[in-house]
Amino acid sequence: MQRIAMLGSGFIGRFYSDSLQGLRSKDKIVTVYSRREESAKKFAADYGVPFWTIDMEEAIVRPEVDVVCVSLPNNLHEEAVMLCCKHKKPVIVTKPLGRNAVEAKRMLDAAEKAGIFNGYLEDLVYAPKFLKAYETVRRGALGRILWAKSRETHPGPHSEWFWDLEQAGGGCILDLGCHCVEIARSYIGKDIRPVEVMCWADTQVKPIDAEDHAIGLVKYENGAIGQFEVSWTFRGGMDLRDEVMGEEGTIWTNNFLRTGFEMFTTGKGGDYVAEKAESNSGWLFPVGDEINELGYNHMFTDMFSSLENGKAPKETFYDGYVVNSILDAAYRSAKSRQWEPVKLDDWRGKKGLTKESHLTDYDPDHYLVKEEVTHYGAKKVILKNKKTGKIEEKVLQ
Amino acid sequence: MQRIAMLGSGFIGRFYSDSLQGLRSKDKIVTVYSRREESAKKFAADYGVPFWTIDMEEAIVRPEVDVVCVSLPNNLHEEAVMLCCKHKKPVIVTKPLGRNAVEAKRMLDAAEKAGIFNGYLEDLVYAPKFLKAYETVRRGALGRILWAKSRETHPGPHSEWFWDLEQAGGGCILDLGCHCVEIARSYIGKDIRPVEVMCWADTQVKPIDAEDHAIGLVKYENGAIGQFEVSWTFRGGMDLRDEVMGEEGTIWTNNFLRTGFEMFTTGKGGDYVAEKAESNSGWLFPVGDEINELGYNHMFTDMFSSLENGKAPKETFYDGYVVNSILDAAYRSAKSRQWEPVKLDDWRGKKGLTKESHLTDYDPDHYLVKEEVTHYGAKKVILKNKKTGKIEEKVLQ
Amino acid sequence: MQRIAMLGSGFIGRFYSDSLQGLRSKDKIVTVYSRREESAKKFAADYGVPFWTIDMEEAIVRPEVDVVCVSLPNNLHEEAVMLCCKHKKPVIVTKPLGRNAVEAKRMLDAAEKAGIFNGYLEDLVYAPKFLKAYETVRRGALGRILWAKSRETHPGPHSEWFWDLEQAGGGCILDLGCHCVEIARSYIGKDIRPVEVMCWADTQVKPIDAEDHAIGLVKYENGAIGQFEVSWTFRGGMDLRDEVMGEEGTIWTNNFLRTGFEMFTTGKGGDYVAEKAESNSGWLFPVGDEINELGYNHMFTDMFSSLENGKAPKETFYDGYVVNSILDAAYRSAKSRQWEPVKLDDWRGKKGLTKESHLTDYDPDHYLVKEEVTHYGAKKVILKNKKTGKIEEKVLQ
Amino acid sequence: MQRIAMLGSGFIGRFYSDSLQGLRSKDKIVTVYSRREESAKKFAADYGVPFWTIDMEEAIVRPEVDVVCVSLPNNLHEEAVMLCCKHKKPVIVTKPLGRNAVEAKRMLDAAEKAGIFNGYLEDLVYAPKFLKAYETVRRGALGRILWAKSRETHPGPHSEWFWDLEQAGGGCILDLGCHCVEIARSYIGKDIRPVEVMCWADTQVKPIDAEDHAIGLVKYENGAIGQFEVSWTFRGGMDLRDEVMGEEGTIWTNNFLRTGFEMFTTGKGGDYVAEKAESNSGWLFPVGDEINELGYNHMFTDMFSSLENGKAPKETFYDGYVVNSILDAAYRSAKSRQWEPVKLDDWRGKKGLTKESHLTDYDPDHYLVKEEVTHYGAKKVILKNKKTGKIEEKVLQ
Repeated sequence: MQRIAMLGSGFIGRFYSDSLQGLRSKDKIVTVYSRREESAKKFAADYGVPFWTIDMEEAIVRPEVDVVCVSLPNNLHEEAVMLCCKHKKPVIVTKPLGRNAVEAKRMLDAAEKAGIFNGYLEDLVYAPKFLKAYETVRRGALGRILWAKSRETHPGPHSEWFWDLEQAGGGCILDLGCHCVEIARSYIGKDIRPVEVMCWADTQVKPIDAEDHAIGLVKYENGAIGQFEVSWTFRGGMDLRDEVMGEEGTIWTNNFLRTGFEMFTTGKGGDYVAEKAESNSGWLFPVGDEINELGYNHMFTDMFSSLENGKAPKETFYDGYVVNSILDAAYRSAKSRQWEPVKLDDWRGKKGLTKESHLTDYDPDHYLVKEEVTHYGAKKVILKNKKTGKIEEKVLQ
Repeated sequence: MQRIAMLGSGFIGRFYSDSLQGLRSKDKIVTVYSRREESAKKFAADYGVPFWTIDMEEAIVRPEVDVVCVSLPNNLHEEAVMLCCKHKKPVIVTKPLGRNAVEAKRMLDAAEKAGIFNGYLEDLVYAPKFLKAYETVRRGALGRILWAKSRETHPGPHSEWFWDLEQAGGGCILDLGCHCVEIARSYIGKDIRPVEVMCWADTQVKPIDAEDHAIGLVKYENGAIGQFEVSWTFRGGMDLRDEVMGEEGTIWTNNFLRTGFEMFTTGKGGDYVAEKAESNSGWLFPVGDEINELGYNHMFTDMFSSLENGKAPKETFYDGYVVNSILDAAYRSAKSRQWEPVKLDDWRGKKGLTKESHLTDYDPDHYLVKEEVTHYGAKKVILKNKKTGKIEEKVLQ
Repeated sequence: MQRIAMLGSGFIGRFYSDSLQGLRSKDKIVTVYSRREESAKKFAADYGVPFWTIDMEEAIVRPEVDVVCVSLPNNLHEEAVMLCCKHKKPVIVTKPLGRNAVEAKRMLDAAEKAGIFNGYLEDLVYAPKFLKAYETVRRGALGRILWAKSRETHPGPHSEWFWDLEQAGGGCILDLGCHCVEIARSYIGKDIRPVEVMCWADTQVKPIDAEDHAIGLVKYENGAIGQFEVSWTFRGGMDLRDEVMGEEGTIWTNNFLRTGFEMFTTGKGGDYVAEKAESNSGWLFPVGDEINELGYNHMFTDMFSSLENGKAPKETFYDGYVVNSILDAAYRSAKSRQWEPVKLDDWRGKKGLTKESHLTDYDPDHYLVKEEVTHYGAKKVILKNKKTGKIEEKVLQ
Repeated sequence: MQRIAMLGSGFIGRFYSDSLQGLRSKDKIVTVYSRREESAKKFAADYGVPFWTIDMEEAIVRPEVDVVCVSLPNNLHEEAVMLCCKHKKPVIVTKPLGRNAVEAKRMLDAAEKAGIFNGYLEDLVYAPKFLKAYETVRRGALGRILWAKSRETHPGPHSEWFWDLEQAGGGCILDLGCHCVEIARSYIGKDIRPVEVMCWADTQVKPIDAEDHAIGLVKYENGAIGQFEVSWTFRGGMDLRDEVMGEEGTIWTNNFLRTGFEMFTTGKGGDYVAEKAESNSGWLFPVGDEINELGYNHMFTDMFSSLENGKAPKETFYDGYVVNSILDAAYRSAKSRQWEPVKLDDWRGKKGLTKESHLTDYDPDHYLVKEEVTHYGAKKVILKNKKTGKIEEKVLQ
């Protein structure tokens, strides 16, 4: 059992709490901190939390607290983590870890120096579909991974601080790209070094200083490519789709808008309000168990079971730091209009990889380019002559 | 926290245990009974159960047992329930409750006489998609419910006793129809009396005495229709689809084969084996979190929370009895080739309902049949003259 | 090239004309008949038809007419066909052929006696998805066919005569069931005799004398089962889905609501009106090329190419007669509440079939019931002992 | 009626011919040219073409030829077009127009100087789903267009010349990117100037000199972004998906792998071979009417109807030239690792556009950032203060 201090009582704090105390869980939130008293009080009432406060340190330091969960705006993560380091409390932090890699690195170093358990709450790499897809990829079902894309777009976040560049540290790249980058990085291999980033970003619709739409490519040392598509201007709900493509296959997952639940209503029947949907009538696509589908349950299980077993969780501050470093490169690229290197002072994965060669022999003199049955029934192979380099076609039978 | 005696160590016992002890659950299995010693031992080892036995009563009677979970073949349900009654242990029983309504009624009566908590483990009415759809229907988003269909088909069950008419009590109607009937009944209203059943059943493929394919209609007192489609001869995996249609809308759910997870593999990449899939290559459709998607987590949460709060769970032996009564009528109809009445000596829902009239007035003299915009742009209404009964068409500008 | 007399200028007449004269077709409509002058005139203007009339015979008899296309209300089909017989003009008739099998038989007999080309315009067995699925089934990809289901539901037809029992001859069974019955019959085999029908029908919503919702089962001599689900009360657009299930596989097709075209619009952007959709905002599911998707192009190609080649088309009046006979049995069954025989005085297919036996030997002493890999990794077979009839399970390594 | 000279008898020549002579078309191929005699002969036999030749000019010059259809490898397009110019024959050319913009420009200039009808056979902007989506976008249903993405990936082309850099002029960017670029350009507006391109390309799998995987972004003068994803290394069939996103909505289309046709087969039932599918068993996703779905029918209808009416078709050599110019920039960018300008000496669309401002007023002092109903029920607006630039949140009870 874990007794949790919850820092933050907003949207994500409530999502976390619904997961933490949902179903038959043994874990309980014992303190809650919010910047606003009425918010702290309401949260404490809603979730049955015995102690609330508007003093962050007080929520952390109390002896009944086993672990601290940071669900605060991005600009307050570092302060919260430093307090946990000071009081040697295990800490888990919502995404992104920092507003940039410098902040993230300071949190990482402080936590490791203090020797405290640190977890990075990247829920979407714990989404059930991701977990199974990831395991499938690791077992080799898709062969060598060539490309991994993650798309997260919706009509924009719910709290005002996201839209404030100072508090958030960025726009949809930071808010949504952090998910996408870690998903693609996981499929490609977290031990493969991200080398450089090319990114387009623009503010197409919203009256804000940060970007509201961006697309980026992340090149890895072994030649694989990660891709992110993020936006706060998408209309139609929350679009969460991932794709991963290997030499031997592909996986497509859809976590939200198309999950096998489809509904039409004229809207005359009742006052039904679908979550995050943009309308209450017509065709709607609800999610059965949102908390589980988005990975919260599996994430906290990993965090607390790891803590109890004295192990690092799957996602630590180090991962948060790598993600921030990639996003920093994306921001630089959006300005410089060039590929920008990912600066990683502290790289813990494989080193010195090169793009592997993967030629398939057809016979001693030829590489195989492709086998095919054409639409008029012929079977043939396309070959490359090893000596001449010429492409040749050979109809079989 | 609940300490559970698990009776049965087969396929369903393992599914239940994966749910019961998965994630952060506080509940634990403390005893396990199996008919075969090696099976009991292996289960105890796999799930960390401290006590195993091949004496059913011994698994139930031990003082550390809070609740008994019956995961045995259908012909052993009654014996297990009677032992729980004898020892006054709360009991939850897998589906179907009995092999027929007579058995189910004896279990219901015994449990109520003994005053013990009784739960009916119909997991699919706890599937997350069903739970949200059900709530949506209850709030009126689809208006008056006209029809509810549930389809469960797959290539046949995994244990030999299912295929043995004596032990199982029936074929796919009993095995799969029990799910479908309770799903449709829930959408239509569990307080609405099922009146009669028409069923077709046949043994089309398998060398067995029971039916391997059946389709049935269940008429309810208010005029709504339930439908089930069940088969052990379907090829392509497990097909679990529900539809519910009301005057104001429709809901379609797919719990298994199309959930937003799609994968192609040449099969050359690794030794991946997809669960229940019929192949390991080509396009495959895995489920992210099978345990949750099929309703097990939400089912046990309801069961144990209800037990702890002194309430009846959503699904009790009474529901199991109603389902068995409907299935009995289906079996009679498949033989008599007529609609057969559902015999319910003990009916606890609404009585004396009639098919409601739902005419919509267009103006004092006409009922509205339909409004339409045709494909060549005209707006019109089709009306029924209240006096003459004539259908009339009126083009509106 | 075919010069066509179009009888009828309503919804279906226009759909047909869009197909007949669409793209690069060489066929032209040369006369049009309508009961109402303004309708005939408008149609002639819209489609460039040189001659219009409100005298049916006049539209048929003119020398420039090569073939007559009957797109009239059901109660006028027989009159039109008899005029074609009188004038020896090739004739093609929209579905259903007659209001009942007696009418259909009279038309069939008259056309055959007159020796004229006769085609039955059952467009949905010419839908491109159906054509390919049908060919696939014929080649054996699904093995022996066990079950074929066709569903057509929408919010009700567009012209007032459909809702008038006298003119239409029935409700949604006749209007939509004729499609479904011919689709299932085609998958099962048009030479397999339909034996009996069980049908439920009700008027659940609309203020009409005919049924607005029905479900039926059609049993074929070889043991296969056809199923239809039809309704005029469905909300959400036009639901056109077929399924066919064989011993070796299954096919699912969706002709309208889910064809790979998905759209979300807030409705603020423009005055877009989606065809047959029930709303202009939210998630919409248009069809790319409706005329082609619904089979009209392929149907007329078969009709006219057959006519030019002196062959019978795939669908003739005989097929229309068989369909009417099956629907007649459905109507009788809805009243009698029993399986009703399909009365076919004129049966031209196979005779004396019995339900085939299809047991699979595992070894000399056993039939194979099922092979399986369980979720805990064991491989096993379930067998039936040929002598004892006992079900046995055998774990293989 | 059009009498066609077909230059080329390979894969695409046959696809075109299936479309040209399919269904009830009045158009006929009257001559065919192929580089190889046996290929020319076979084609003439298969499609009933009266005259075949291995002399290109001979196929063009014959008097019965109304229009020339160029279906040759990329390196032969220019020669064929120049011959058509010489003999003043209307000409339509498969995609891409040239191997690069220089070739394309020469063809464009020559055709315009000769005053001949010229059509660019970009079939995918005639795909029925595209046509309807395009019309919807033009009517404003999605509002201002922000982003349009087109993805075409498959396991590689069927003829050897595609894999030869000299004959093809490039790899998957040229082969598939030409489709994607024209699709996105059409959604954004063909009169909007493409300004610059950023592209990643690599040879990840195949033993060839050209790229087998690429991703590119195309920036338009009004700030909209086009995106292409192309590959010859995708496994799972042919993936053809487009997305377009506007301020007021989104459209997703799938032309091939998910069109509402789903099939499972054990492979035991027959010798079914699915087109372009990578396997013959398991779950397969056929397309009903491939020729129509891919746009061939609607494309030739536009080409020939335009020719007969003395109008330019929707896609002319000018469009082919613009596409080549964009692809040239993509190739330069893949090397320079920077955004590269699209060089268009001949620009016929709008000029001098700037990124438009689209702020929404909430009240005199604020812009609206977003309205939302949160998951705990509160309605609120997020605003930007026009004076201070501050983001503010306002809860509306």
